Amino acid sequence: MAASTGCGDGGGGATVVNNKQMILRDYATGFVAESDLSVTTAAVELSVPAGSTAVLVKNLYLSCDPYMGIRMRKPSPSSLALIGAFTPGKPIDGHGVSKVIDSGSPSFKRGDLVYCVVPWEEYSLINPTTGLALKIDHTDIPLSYYTGILGMPGLTAYIGFYEICSPKKGEYVFISAASGAVGQLVGQFAKMMGCYVVGSAGSKEKVDLLKNRFGFDDAFNYKEEPDLDAALKRCFPEGIDIYFENVGGKILDAVLLSMRIHGRIAVCGNISQYHLEEWEGVRNLTTVIYKRIRMEGFATSDFMCRFSEFVEFMLPLIREGKVTYVEDIVEGLENGPAALVGLFHGRNLGKQVLMVACE
Amino acid sequence: MAASTGCGDGGGGATVVNNKQMILRDYATGFVAESDLSVTTAAVELSVPAGSTAVLVKNLYLSCDPYMGIRMRKPSPSSLALIGAFTPGKPIDGHGVSKVIDSGSPSFKRGDLVYCVVPWEEYSLINPTTGLALKIDHTDIPLSYYTGILGMPGLTAYIGFYEICSPKKGEYVFISAASGAVGQLVGQFAKMMGCYVVGSAGSKEKVDLLKNRFGFDDAFNYKEEPDLDAALKRCFPEGIDIYFENVGGKILDAVLLSMRIHGRIAVCGNISQYHLEEWEGVRNLTTVIYKRIRMEGFATSDFMCRFSEFVEFMLPLIREGKVTYVEDIVEGLENGPAALVGLFHGRNLGKQVLMVACE
Repeated sequence: MAASTGCGDGGGGATVVNNKQMILRDYATGFVAESDLSVTTAAVELSVPAGSTAVLVKNLYLSCDPYMGIRMRKPSPSSLALIGAFTPGKPIDGHGVSKVIDSGSPSFKRGDLVYCVVPWEEYSLINPTTGLALKIDHTDIPLSYYTGILGMPGLTAYIGFYEICSPKKGEYVFISAASGAVGQLVGQFAKMMGCYVVGSAGSKEKVDLLKNRFGFDDAFNYKEEPDLDAALKRCFPEGIDIYFENVGGKILDAVLLSMRIHGRIAVCGNISQYHLEEWEGVRNLTTVIYKRIRMEGFATSDFMCRFSEFVEFMLPLIREGKVTYVEDIVEGLENGPAALVGLFHGRNLGKQVLMVACE
Repeated sequence: MAASTGCGDGGGGATVVNNKQMILRDYATGFVAESDLSVTTAAVELSVPAGSTAVLVKNLYLSCDPYMGIRMRKPSPSSLALIGAFTPGKPIDGHGVSKVIDSGSPSFKRGDLVYCVVPWEEYSLINPTTGLALKIDHTDIPLSYYTGILGMPGLTAYIGFYEICSPKKGEYVFISAASGAVGQLVGQFAKMMGCYVVGSAGSKEKVDLLKNRFGFDDAFNYKEEPDLDAALKRCFPEGIDIYFENVGGKILDAVLLSMRIHGRIAVCGNISQYHLEEWEGVRNLTTVIYKRIRMEGFATSDFMCRFSEFVEFMLPLIREGKVTYVEDIVEGLENGPAALVGLFHGRNLGKQVLMVACE
């Protein structure tokens, strides 16, 4: 916790406190490790500099997302097409929910809650005109939800399923990493549409969640399936119309053998590949012709203009209990390395969130 | 040639002639060889049986197409999603241009020219209600063109480029197997749209054709490029918006590294993979997310309803000399094995056609 939680006095001698930060030591090589990150402190003034239009926020919840693993590695021309890498020696950053402590911006006032991109630290001075900073109007919903079901992962599921998958009632839908921040929502959307839905995940606990909490028709633990092709043929004797891809590599190779004619693959993530020095080969791509498959990568950052439409869609579903959401909340910035690296290993159960401070 | 070229007399004692046929001996293993095929003869009556609605045709031109290699191998669940295998011991079949010799069908009369699916033989009795059989109305065009620029390869280029690639003026287009039956047309369509077009092919002669006959902006011989990634980066310093895929495997892997954000890959063929016992792995698929690439397999058989629209589009381009087409015509059914297997090895220069008989 910060040495002082007092707010800036808005005048001359502003309060200065210790600001805990989570730093990327250096670009990760091999699988990202907790030791690639360190928690340090820096001093921060709890007020916006006079004349600045910046906003000083206290960070409450930070979102742990698979794509952050890409950003911890040395950038390549390909990865830069999606997003820049973190800067070694500096705090990593990501989506978060924060509370305004002081504001030089006419759009925000002290006490406002915002969904924004912030460095992983306790207090951040952000520029709301250059980075994402959306005021949170609906506070009857758990604030942490804005890092998941009502945030970027929710929008990802919404765009990925309804736009990229072109789903139809009665279709067969497979989701990998299905209990994660995005997968659990895609499965529920697909059930709402009348699809047959199967998910894969990496533990018995996750599989139970898929079947008993999210209403999937079936699920399997990929770590206990010696033959992924056989597992998919068992779950989908009629084949797969839609594959919502979060994993890549071996599971994609197996899925390609079970795809139906005119099937669609929405490529949302490739978490099995992000931490490899050399990507795995996928052998069954010729089926893309044989079965006339459409495989499409998408990035939610291209769809931010749809955010308010998405929130309007999602809010009633949450309020009426038609969609459920499981979060895995870890407390304290000092536990950030374990939470984030744990996510890359699949140790989380549901959406991984880091709670930095109570409201 | 047949022992007799006399037509059936429509009455009792019909003329019987030797009918040369090209037979698949057995399913090919490893790379298809000429020895997997044999030319034999069978007797054929040169008239339609009394009461039958079939049509007896004399086959003039037969189309040699890469997908026929798939059909020469033992079928798999994946390949059957596209097309059935040939039957060992029976003639192979494919698209052809034929002349009606006798007809029990009210839709066809003696002397009509038809674009149809026929067994590889000199004379065929076809059922025009169950197989493709389109009357050829425009005979000012070389008849062989109906196996290429005005046939299935032409429709493939038309649908593949205009529908699947979603092209825009000024975009960067790469085509593999670019001098083939489909590629040479895609390149010319792309130039007509104002794209920058580069093709790859497997000989100096083909590369010359691309640059000097079809108007490609650039071209390279993939066999002389030790580093395909470097070759593509040299030809496309700005990257590739559209890849028209005829080859698969290593070239796709290299292309993925040069694709631009929101690029499109129309998967038309995978000729480098059809004759392998085990398909090659493609390692760079994670770029599909990084660059938000759409990769879409398509089969022309799904678009036959667009055939007349396509012919209306294509005819004026041919008549006005706005599109050119290079064919590689081999004469005589006995040379069919060499022509077809030569195509799989890329020995053809332009669209591979087998001429069975003069008109």
